[in-house]
Amino acid sequence: MYRDIKVVGFDADDTLWVNEPYFRDIEHEFCELLKDYLPVEEISKKLLEIEIGNIPIYGYGVKGFILSLIETAIKISNKEVKPEIIEAIINLGKELLNKDITLLHHVKSTLEQLSNKSLKLIVATKGDLLDQERKLTKSGLEKYFHHIEVMSDKKESDYKKLINHLDIQPEQFIMIGNSLKSDIVPVINLGCKAIHIPFHTTWEHEYVSSSELKDKEYNTVESISEILNLF
Amino acid sequence: MYRDIKVVGFDADDTLWVNEPYFRDIEHEFCELLKDYLPVEEISKKLLEIEIGNIPIYGYGVKGFILSLIETAIKISNKEVKPEIIEAIINLGKELLNKDITLLHHVKSTLEQLSNKSLKLIVATKGDLLDQERKLTKSGLEKYFHHIEVMSDKKESDYKKLINHLDIQPEQFIMIGNSLKSDIVPVINLGCKAIHIPFHTTWEHEYVSSSELKDKEYNTVESISEILNLF
Repeated sequence: MYRDIKVVGFDADDTLWVNEPYFRDIEHEFCELLKDYLPVEEISKKLLEIEIGNIPIYGYGVKGFILSLIETAIKISNKEVKPEIIEAIINLGKELLNKDITLLHHVKSTLEQLSNKSLKLIVATKGDLLDQERKLTKSGLEKYFHHIEVMSDKKESDYKKLINHLDIQPEQFIMIGNSLKSDIVPVINLGCKAIHIPFHTTWEHEYVSSSELKDKEYNTVESISEILNLF
Repeated sequence: MYRDIKVVGFDADDTLWVNEPYFRDIEHEFCELLKDYLPVEEISKKLLEIEIGNIPIYGYGVKGFILSLIETAIKISNKEVKPEIIEAIINLGKELLNKDITLLHHVKSTLEQLSNKSLKLIVATKGDLLDQERKLTKSGLEKYFHHIEVMSDKKESDYKKLINHLDIQPEQFIMIGNSLKSDIVPVINLGCKAIHIPFHTTWEHEYVSSSELKDKEYNTVESISEILNLF
């Protein structure tokens, strides 16, 4: 079906391994730490607002997330938050950066089989560089990939750079991932192919409206193992 | 002189533009904020210790630096630091991430001339991905480079990956930079070439002992413009 494809890009977080639920766990612990200052729901709302406001300078990833948690703690406590709480937030971040990798079902066997075909497999992910490299190494999946591309964002312009860098044409690239906003819509707009594998937990910032999906042609599979039938 | 070279890697911070002095300015302001708790020299010592301890999980760059400043503030104040001070530290970090770029002398004209030769020029730098991309865009130098490689570290193994990724042999790569530890020693050890352009301010973590430099062959130039005579 995908005969022209030369390079297959895999998103990593929540496509190859569990990620977003860990961020939500930390947000939950963060809200517990600060519930004396504000109701939990309002803390989450304020946090999202600060996180999104900081993306243009911090980008994506754990370090920016932790800095946004600290900033939120100071703001919602009206500068009364105790240093112990800031310290606890820093430690939550370090835990996240040291966390073991939980692969999603069928990932390893699918990559094993796909790597026998004459396709170049890469990881194309956003987040902190060192953290994503660490997760790939820990995952045991490194051997299946030609290399990892950590991207500062996953907009059309970022994929354009990626495709130039790979020295291929858009129709020779397919992206596989769980985020419609980051893995599907921008690559389709560039003339690449895409396969969506939904994941149960998605960060609010990653939602797309149905109008953005109108007339977009891409495959959706329930499990990563189903992509084998498409190549 | 460098006839076999196909790819020229330029370090960015303190090779193309000013960087380390800005970090030292922030450290200075940080020490001022906390001088009630410890003498300035001891603050700097504690900060360096915490920064180096955090490199394995945070890597290099502004976000990890700010997290280390916050951690240091909590430690040296014995958990008594005021939230206002943490807020001030976060703002120092944001200033650094929004700072204008000051190119070093002769950088633009040298790249302009070098880009006319049949060499592929790349930026090879460590730090936060988004921040380094932002600086390259702001610098106006983007047009001279094939692409930017942000590396999580600059050890031999990292350069090995880079050279594989570039599909070239070690002797076809030359690295140009201000850090003996990060830009010269590891690439020489791999069989690549290197040109050292010393910069007046170097982070303590980047120092190398003279024994590490023994028998290493590389050129040293005082100004980037002198590299033109070598190609």
